Amino acid sequence: MDQQMQVTNQVLRYENGVVQLVEDVIVTEYPITIILNDQEFATLVCSPEDIEELVVGFLASEGIINRFKDIKELDVVETTGKAIVKTHRVNKLNEMFHSKRYVTSCCGKSRQSFYFYNDARTVKPIETKKKVLSIDDCFRLMEMMQESSTIFQETGGVHNAALCDENGIVVARTDIGRHNALDKIYGYCLKNSIALEDKVIVFSGRISSEVLLKVAKIKCGVVLSKSAPTELALRLAQELGITAVGFIRKKALNIYTNPERIIQPGVS
Amino acid sequence: MDQQMQVTNQVLRYENGVVQLVEDVIVTEYPITIILNDQEFATLVCSPEDIEELVVGFLASEGIINRFKDIKELDVVETTGKAIVKTHRVNKLNEMFHSKRYVTSCCGKSRQSFYFYNDARTVKPIETKKKVLSIDDCFRLMEMMQESSTIFQETGGVHNAALCDENGIVVARTDIGRHNALDKIYGYCLKNSIALEDKVIVFSGRISSEVLLKVAKIKCGVVLSKSAPTELALRLAQELGITAVGFIRKKALNIYTNPERIIQPGVS
Repeated sequence: MDQQMQVTNQVLRYENGVVQLVEDVIVTEYPITIILNDQEFATLVCSPEDIEELVVGFLASEGIINRFKDIKELDVVETTGKAIVKTHRVNKLNEMFHSKRYVTSCCGKSRQSFYFYNDARTVKPIETKKKVLSIDDCFRLMEMMQESSTIFQETGGVHNAALCDENGIVVARTDIGRHNALDKIYGYCLKNSIALEDKVIVFSGRISSEVLLKVAKIKCGVVLSKSAPTELALRLAQELGITAVGFIRKKALNIYTNPERIIQPGVS
Repeated sequence: MDQQMQVTNQVLRYENGVVQLVEDVIVTEYPITIILNDQEFATLVCSPEDIEELVVGFLASEGIINRFKDIKELDVVETTGKAIVKTHRVNKLNEMFHSKRYVTSCCGKSRQSFYFYNDARTVKPIETKKKVLSIDDCFRLMEMMQESSTIFQETGGVHNAALCDENGIVVARTDIGRHNALDKIYGYCLKNSIALEDKVIVFSGRISSEVLLKVAKIKCGVVLSKSAPTELALRLAQELGITAVGFIRKKALNIYTNPERIIQPGVS
């Protein structure tokens, strides 16, 4: 890729009553359009790195493919900003229900937490609940993830996601889009057939319902975040058996759901 | 709306070596599906407040309507999470090009900054460039916007946007989705026919290309942000004549584009 993740720009900086022209590091955005089996499918605006993984993860996340082998051809054409994808089998059901709303009840009372058909059809609960992390691990992994991203430290304009086990980072990805960072991780896992039972996702952003669903699709049982979760994300985490840990800052954190996977002090 | 913007939940809080069950305020998410002229158009996941404004702003932002009067009927049905919309005229061109990629060149060199057809067709540069704000105004308006949102202070999980003039806030809106907060402002402006020549948008989040395009669609000449811009957003700001001011923190800020609208120290 000739595209860069960041560039330097001249900017008028005001500080202590003085305006001066200074050099500043600015994060880039790159629009990439996925052409799926000869039809325009979606345009993602992303950080121009690990684009192939992003496309694979996005298509899996949208329910278009189930595994990396479902892709016959994937060609990222930088000059036009297109990713040309051909798949072996076309799951008509998934294409038909792409982005389509899932409403199970008209009275609102028994409505499930899912809001897209494809998610409700394809996302399965994580069953195994063995202890995987100590509270100290949570702090340590968050710190490792933050340190792994120099672009964040320089521009403040990106989100970071990492797939970790208790020993540290397996893979870390960065993107201006919160979902893209997770899709890049998902694409990496599918391409490299990573075993996921004992892995956790560490994320710089808020745990929204969409983020929680991506974690479930990747099939990780634990998500660690520096930020707050939403109430819908916590309901989904409960339904899907995912441990959500948030507000990991300094020496404090919140365990929101399924605490069995976290070894707590005084409990072995 | 019976839906609430936030709820209290019990959470396991770890702090100073001790885990205890505490009450925590959690922000909610509400999926709303827009049924446009009897067809499912999009599902937005939002904070359940000012939904009608959100739908109006979203449809305008997507190029489906040009003004509030284009809507014949708008009914938000809370129990099913649907917004039923009927429009007077249907702009087929806009529906056809909805979310469709705009690529002007195959060599990549003269490619414009726009990446969606409808944006390239409908977004016009802001022509007037009279001075509207002093640097002190920038700090003051950012502070006023932050203070206007109690939910942010309580949960840390939402974005804030405000339409301001030099006297202060005209309207402020909050949402878990960055774009939704801006679409709510846009919807408010369209519904209430707000004059926009001397107004500025103050925003808590990063100035991405999508945010910048929304500011241009609302027809504001200035955007103030607490966070960083992206390089593509700055190119668009340049093309569209928008003044982008970022990293407004404590007593420092950066003016990235079209500084003519900001009265600088020592310059009258």
